[in-house]
Amino acid sequence: MISSAEYRERITALRPNVYIDGELVPRTDPRIEPGVNVIALTYDLAQEPQYDGVFTATSHLSGDKINRFCHIHRSADDLLKKQEMTRLYCRQTGGCIQRCMGTDALNALSVITYEADQLHGTEYYPRFLAYLEHFQKQDLCANCAQTDVKGDRKKRPHQQADPDLYLRVVERRADGIVVRGCKAHNTIAPYADEIIVVPTRFLTEEEADWAVAFAVPADTKGVRLVCRPTAFRPRQKLDAPIAHYGDVESFTIFDDVFVPWERVFLCGEREFGGPLALLFALYHRHSYTGCKPAGTDVLMGMAALAAEYNGIAGADHVQHKLAEMIGVAELVYAAGIAAAVRGQPMRSGTFIPDVVFANVGRRHAGEHIYREFEIVADIAGGLAATLPLEGDYLSDENGALIRKYLMRNPAISAEDQYRCFRLISDAICSSMGGVAQIAGLHGGGSPVMESITLLKAYDVELRKQAAKHLAGIVS
Amino acid sequence: MISSAEYRERITALRPNVYIDGELVPRTDPRIEPGVNVIALTYDLAQEPQYDGVFTATSHLSGDKINRFCHIHRSADDLLKKQEMTRLYCRQTGGCIQRCMGTDALNALSVITYEADQLHGTEYYPRFLAYLEHFQKQDLCANCAQTDVKGDRKKRPHQQADPDLYLRVVERRADGIVVRGCKAHNTIAPYADEIIVVPTRFLTEEEADWAVAFAVPADTKGVRLVCRPTAFRPRQKLDAPIAHYGDVESFTIFDDVFVPWERVFLCGEREFGGPLALLFALYHRHSYTGCKPAGTDVLMGMAALAAEYNGIAGADHVQHKLAEMIGVAELVYAAGIAAAVRGQPMRSGTFIPDVVFANVGRRHAGEHIYREFEIVADIAGGLAATLPLEGDYLSDENGALIRKYLMRNPAISAEDQYRCFRLISDAICSSMGGVAQIAGLHGGGSPVMESITLLKAYDVELRKQAAKHLAGIVS
Amino acid sequence: MISSAEYRERITALRPNVYIDGELVPRTDPRIEPGVNVIALTYDLAQEPQYDGVFTATSHLSGDKINRFCHIHRSADDLLKKQEMTRLYCRQTGGCIQRCMGTDALNALSVITYEADQLHGTEYYPRFLAYLEHFQKQDLCANCAQTDVKGDRKKRPHQQADPDLYLRVVERRADGIVVRGCKAHNTIAPYADEIIVVPTRFLTEEEADWAVAFAVPADTKGVRLVCRPTAFRPRQKLDAPIAHYGDVESFTIFDDVFVPWERVFLCGEREFGGPLALLFALYHRHSYTGCKPAGTDVLMGMAALAAEYNGIAGADHVQHKLAEMIGVAELVYAAGIAAAVRGQPMRSGTFIPDVVFANVGRRHAGEHIYREFEIVADIAGGLAATLPLEGDYLSDENGALIRKYLMRNPAISAEDQYRCFRLISDAICSSMGGVAQIAGLHGGGSPVMESITLLKAYDVELRKQAAKHLAGIVS
Amino acid sequence: MISSAEYRERITALRPNVYIDGELVPRTDPRIEPGVNVIALTYDLAQEPQYDGVFTATSHLSGDKINRFCHIHRSADDLLKKQEMTRLYCRQTGGCIQRCMGTDALNALSVITYEADQLHGTEYYPRFLAYLEHFQKQDLCANCAQTDVKGDRKKRPHQQADPDLYLRVVERRADGIVVRGCKAHNTIAPYADEIIVVPTRFLTEEEADWAVAFAVPADTKGVRLVCRPTAFRPRQKLDAPIAHYGDVESFTIFDDVFVPWERVFLCGEREFGGPLALLFALYHRHSYTGCKPAGTDVLMGMAALAAEYNGIAGADHVQHKLAEMIGVAELVYAAGIAAAVRGQPMRSGTFIPDVVFANVGRRHAGEHIYREFEIVADIAGGLAATLPLEGDYLSDENGALIRKYLMRNPAISAEDQYRCFRLISDAICSSMGGVAQIAGLHGGGSPVMESITLLKAYDVELRKQAAKHLAGIVS
Repeated sequence: MISSAEYRERITALRPNVYIDGELVPRTDPRIEPGVNVIALTYDLAQEPQYDGVFTATSHLSGDKINRFCHIHRSADDLLKKQEMTRLYCRQTGGCIQRCMGTDALNALSVITYEADQLHGTEYYPRFLAYLEHFQKQDLCANCAQTDVKGDRKKRPHQQADPDLYLRVVERRADGIVVRGCKAHNTIAPYADEIIVVPTRFLTEEEADWAVAFAVPADTKGVRLVCRPTAFRPRQKLDAPIAHYGDVESFTIFDDVFVPWERVFLCGEREFGGPLALLFALYHRHSYTGCKPAGTDVLMGMAALAAEYNGIAGADHVQHKLAEMIGVAELVYAAGIAAAVRGQPMRSGTFIPDVVFANVGRRHAGEHIYREFEIVADIAGGLAATLPLEGDYLSDENGALIRKYLMRNPAISAEDQYRCFRLISDAICSSMGGVAQIAGLHGGGSPVMESITLLKAYDVELRKQAAKHLAGIVS
Repeated sequence: MISSAEYRERITALRPNVYIDGELVPRTDPRIEPGVNVIALTYDLAQEPQYDGVFTATSHLSGDKINRFCHIHRSADDLLKKQEMTRLYCRQTGGCIQRCMGTDALNALSVITYEADQLHGTEYYPRFLAYLEHFQKQDLCANCAQTDVKGDRKKRPHQQADPDLYLRVVERRADGIVVRGCKAHNTIAPYADEIIVVPTRFLTEEEADWAVAFAVPADTKGVRLVCRPTAFRPRQKLDAPIAHYGDVESFTIFDDVFVPWERVFLCGEREFGGPLALLFALYHRHSYTGCKPAGTDVLMGMAALAAEYNGIAGADHVQHKLAEMIGVAELVYAAGIAAAVRGQPMRSGTFIPDVVFANVGRRHAGEHIYREFEIVADIAGGLAATLPLEGDYLSDENGALIRKYLMRNPAISAEDQYRCFRLISDAICSSMGGVAQIAGLHGGGSPVMESITLLKAYDVELRKQAAKHLAGIVS
Repeated sequence: MISSAEYRERITALRPNVYIDGELVPRTDPRIEPGVNVIALTYDLAQEPQYDGVFTATSHLSGDKINRFCHIHRSADDLLKKQEMTRLYCRQTGGCIQRCMGTDALNALSVITYEADQLHGTEYYPRFLAYLEHFQKQDLCANCAQTDVKGDRKKRPHQQADPDLYLRVVERRADGIVVRGCKAHNTIAPYADEIIVVPTRFLTEEEADWAVAFAVPADTKGVRLVCRPTAFRPRQKLDAPIAHYGDVESFTIFDDVFVPWERVFLCGEREFGGPLALLFALYHRHSYTGCKPAGTDVLMGMAALAAEYNGIAGADHVQHKLAEMIGVAELVYAAGIAAAVRGQPMRSGTFIPDVVFANVGRRHAGEHIYREFEIVADIAGGLAATLPLEGDYLSDENGALIRKYLMRNPAISAEDQYRCFRLISDAICSSMGGVAQIAGLHGGGSPVMESITLLKAYDVELRKQAAKHLAGIVS
Repeated sequence: MISSAEYRERITALRPNVYIDGELVPRTDPRIEPGVNVIALTYDLAQEPQYDGVFTATSHLSGDKINRFCHIHRSADDLLKKQEMTRLYCRQTGGCIQRCMGTDALNALSVITYEADQLHGTEYYPRFLAYLEHFQKQDLCANCAQTDVKGDRKKRPHQQADPDLYLRVVERRADGIVVRGCKAHNTIAPYADEIIVVPTRFLTEEEADWAVAFAVPADTKGVRLVCRPTAFRPRQKLDAPIAHYGDVESFTIFDDVFVPWERVFLCGEREFGGPLALLFALYHRHSYTGCKPAGTDVLMGMAALAAEYNGIAGADHVQHKLAEMIGVAELVYAAGIAAAVRGQPMRSGTFIPDVVFANVGRRHAGEHIYREFEIVADIAGGLAATLPLEGDYLSDENGALIRKYLMRNPAISAEDQYRCFRLISDAICSSMGGVAQIAGLHGGGSPVMESITLLKAYDVELRKQAAKHLAGIVS
């Protein structure tokens, strides 16, 4: 396992292919740094003894101790530990830990490459294992680029006016393939070592060219990362951990990118496009059962702190709103536990979570994210939107007056009261808050997508039979 | 393990102390039979090989195979099996299996009697074990009488105008105690072998007389069971399994009942009143994570069947309402699994479920019961309320016309269509439906009670610390 | 205006064509009486001076004072008065006043017959006016039979396996028409003087035979009323007004019924089928903005009374649940007021409510009916499902004990406490409660139907233009 | 009525007392301009003939045509017009029109000054009328400063550690009074002509010094406006109307401000403190029944436009989400209409809206604001959070690729598609979106406040009587 310094160095050395607002920028750009800081944490804390066995795992390939983010789950316990790790990390950063997507992609590939080989006699699985060995050894951090830009939502990939609206193979060569397309809503790409690409949906027979999965270094020729960084409002003097975390979304453009065969994990076996897409989604939804409760932890903490400072912690409506948040966090977490416990091993030995539990869990989180922000706003009051700016808080001219009029609980310093509402304002009344809401809704698949998955996976017939039995219907 | 015939015989032999609508009735009264049928099922199916190990367990006392309803949980697996058993049974009957309450009372007593002995040097635990041995050997069925009538809700037991409004010890004798009071909302008592009494709330120092737990045969002198049976509308010719199940609620009155010491499990140790009340509630809420998903299974089956018959099974809004029900069932079930997996053994060796998961699960069920009925009504349409009566359906005069006009899907017989809506009408547009709604809301503790339990058990401080850390607040 | 005695006499004199559970019964059958009592009230109270001008109106035909249920609305004020009248009546009976459906049908016909004549040169409007004059003079009470049984919901009327699944004209004769079909979910028919039939949906060119509207006396040859009465549990001694009200639903079968031309108001003008269906629905939805708030009034009263008796009236959660019910009642009522104020006169001089406001109002009521029952159950507690039966309450054997243990507030008599929970039990834990829930959801059109109506009527384009303007999109 | 140029000139001439982030800035600061633009619109459009009679009114003092924002409501029609005006304006700006608060304060003062004079023989009403005449003649724009900073929420004004935490009179002089305190959550102050101050809550006998109302020019000596501007992300080339609107919140500090008697409208008559606070709130809540539906109009327009561009406008779930938004907008609007129609004149001749309808309307809006944002995010998808920045969209390097991959509907230009999602991103994924959510929740009083008002104003007893009547309870 490497140190965060090594990680920072490694990504700094990548060829510049990151664009922000019209400029080509180095990976040391301050707008990217908040994202880098999040990932750095996953290198730092994995070294701490208190997290040993949770933030780390034993490679089933090498037997070495590795960062759990590089691990292939081999048991229910692995899934439980991943979930626990995710919650612990996200509670620290107050937001998405981001590195999970690479893990989820690796796990999905470890199943599907094996299955494809069984059916087609291909060699994806050994290739994948070689790649995985390298990945674990180098302690790499990967982005997973899944969601295509999709053009007209009513049309299939091959029906689009522009066939590139879903990423596809445009050329097959002796040494590899050339791909073209663009993956959207892509977190972490500008500070990841690797980009792993998987398909986004089920594919028909006409769509073999769209059935492609592979991994490339993030600075591979032809890869363009057009980025949208989001960070909290900068601090002047009242520094705080929250101010150092953030994320960067990108349009990850593949402008005729060459991928050598040893990094190609699916190419043309269109019947595996859908299963790979779904399996990545399944792992990622299970990851959400770890991160979403952490998000609730932090929002609940803000609400409880604001209530304490406002002197209303004991109010009945405050208590019941906190109890409601407990329900959101723990039902989602419980669904993740159940998904792990009721999971099952696949033929490659990889362990996958139960589909129904993972999806009801992720969906429940997605359906309540706006409600959680509403509760925080409700308890914290309007100050989250109207808090005086730091320049005024610190000014000679008005600082003293602001501190005087901010006072709620005389036992708490004005600064702590300011810090509390500054945190809440930054979290729920900001671009970052908007991103958190939308990511909470759509990230890993929207509630509508989970409902569709559930309706496919669930045995409604069994329930109809139960009703028929009670009704005395024998047909 | 005894047969259902033996069970029926045994309760028939009890001294008559059951009253219905002003009359003293035998336990063979047809209004009680639907409840008896439910319990009989728990004797019958436990004998079937397919359910072995789930509906049965191995006694940790005798090593014998016993009905799982008589078992003390010794592991997470026991809790998982109890949950699974509960769901399977309730899916069969379309409602509450009822026998769980005795199980939950036994398990709670197995913990608290041990703890009381540790603190006070009493002998409750050995007494309890002797009772348990008898219980398991005879394969008894027990009611648990917990909820007192409670008088003025704003006053404590000892503050009530009438001290009997909470059941209490009125006399202590050499050979036992005399108790007086009334337990309300009491299911199953008129067809149980035994009544187990536990306290309903935390008790103060003035309230030692109210700290009492014991078990008596259901026909003990002084016990009066004033009953309210609820059954589905009787069938004329179109018989169906649903028509044979029902339940009976009672005011279980203890009119100066003598209890010999060997059946007294708590008497005056008021600090254990609250813990025993809560622990029974905890087990019972965990039981709800098994039965409530079964209730949803059956309601979902009705909705799906009505949609199929109405020809709207594929409609988007129908599908999403089914997906919503899946979420209710499986989040509750997941919470039960998590409660088992994260449960822990107590000093007596009994295994208890996790408080937070059990309570978020039970609460989620309680908060959605009316919504589930609404969905069934929504999809089934008005016919549940306006379906012609069976006499007309069968009549020479109008039967043919009714069958003509009932037809929805020509591929399904008129009788099956009638049976389907008859089932739904009986289930959601009836006294029985009303009981199911209210029991779904309040049984085992209302959502408000679970919120209170959660707020006490949950580490909100940890969440506040997470927020403080992110805000840079160090105090 | 006639007296209720005259009304009772009149319906008693009708030819027996009412069937209940396989028997042909007279209109004096005790199972019908609760419905008759509701209608009788509309004759009695209209005579009381305090309601003058609200429960009565001035006929625009004769200038006579008439019962407002016989009135054609000529102004916004008429709609406001009808709404007010409906709320006052339903608050008295604790449920549906039932007579409104005839009023709504008359008003819809007064518009559509006029429009049909304008387009086709027919004589429906003068015929209708002659009928109306008779109706007002005799102070008749009418059922409106709209909802066809509909067979396969995915198929149109002319596509059904059996063309009679929507009521249609099967013969046109010199003196009138013969119709066949069955109207379902039909309230009030067995104790109405008249049955008014209107179509249930839009009709295509192939469906002229289904475009038919007419009125017949309720005992017309070939009309069969197959009834399902619902009443509250009978009282032994503790009589109460609620026990005397109820309703009867029927399958209203037209088994080749002859209708003379002077009572035919639409016959073959298929383009008016949809508008007439919608206009009746519009009036009926506006009626719901009067009756639904009354339903909430009564449920809120029960909840508040139970809270008072339980000693928890001041509890925060109780107060906020009452506040929630206030919101349901008054938003629905406000929507009715807005629909009246923003209504408009049609060419016949009849005044119609605004479509958008009437539909958002009705839908809001329908979406909250289950929630309202939930709140009452929540506040009242489990006793609604477990209250001892009246026979026990009154018995020598157990009566005194029950009265002792029912006591909550010592300042209230046991009888009043029993009466309070008996009312709630009858209202929310009974067949009648089930009917009220389903009628609250589906009566007058389900929320889904109102959404469809709204999407058609609403100017979404205007909103898109507002967004485009702000975005700087000029195309 | 003056022009917007005159308004801009007038506020530019004010003494600088506006602070932003530590600096004293002129009122021409670009961060203030978006707010100024909103107010300017109220001067411009009032001159347009199409809005005559809606955006203008006839002064009951002078008989002159005036801007309706300067008008005292004299009839239900005035309230209906104000509501309509508010919706039309806010649909133009996509947000709060801001100038209503001054109107609401004037109307409240027109009632309370009259009532205070009747009771105390004071001269507030004639003073107020003189001020009003000046106000109307000059076509002034006023801020209303109501909400005190409030310190410990559990303590009354006179119990606070610092008595200034509620604004109060610190000195009474022959020529006027001196006041000290700070009003928070104060919109519009840095670009208003006048600041009108009213109390924030009911006051006890010890709190006469806090019972004070007055008006001062916004640049009065001692008034410090510590501001927090919020604007949309700046545009580089793709300008759009939305980009020019915004608002500014302030801590409005009264650092010992002298107010001459002719501008003092309440001073010490503590029994009018609460009524004035509530009456301003009532008017302001009625104003929300106009602006909130406009907010929904714009959000609905965004959702519908995104659905159209994404090609999913016809999808069932999209349609039903739009139908849900229609319900929010029109129930709130209906409540405002009902509040106007059921309003009443006060003794001063001013017309006030009905308390119950105004409060259920405002509350309904507040309870759904987060849900509305959720719907827009749901339909628009993740692009609102991940849209490439304008610099990249316009760049030579990546612009063409971004335009290629943004394409959804080939019939719509890439620029319009970009503009659509840019608008949505700016509206729901931004600081401005956060402010809109929090203002939608808390502005004019949070839902909890409206519930409290409702519970005080509503006749729950009438509902209990209805229940008692039905139960046969005569006591």
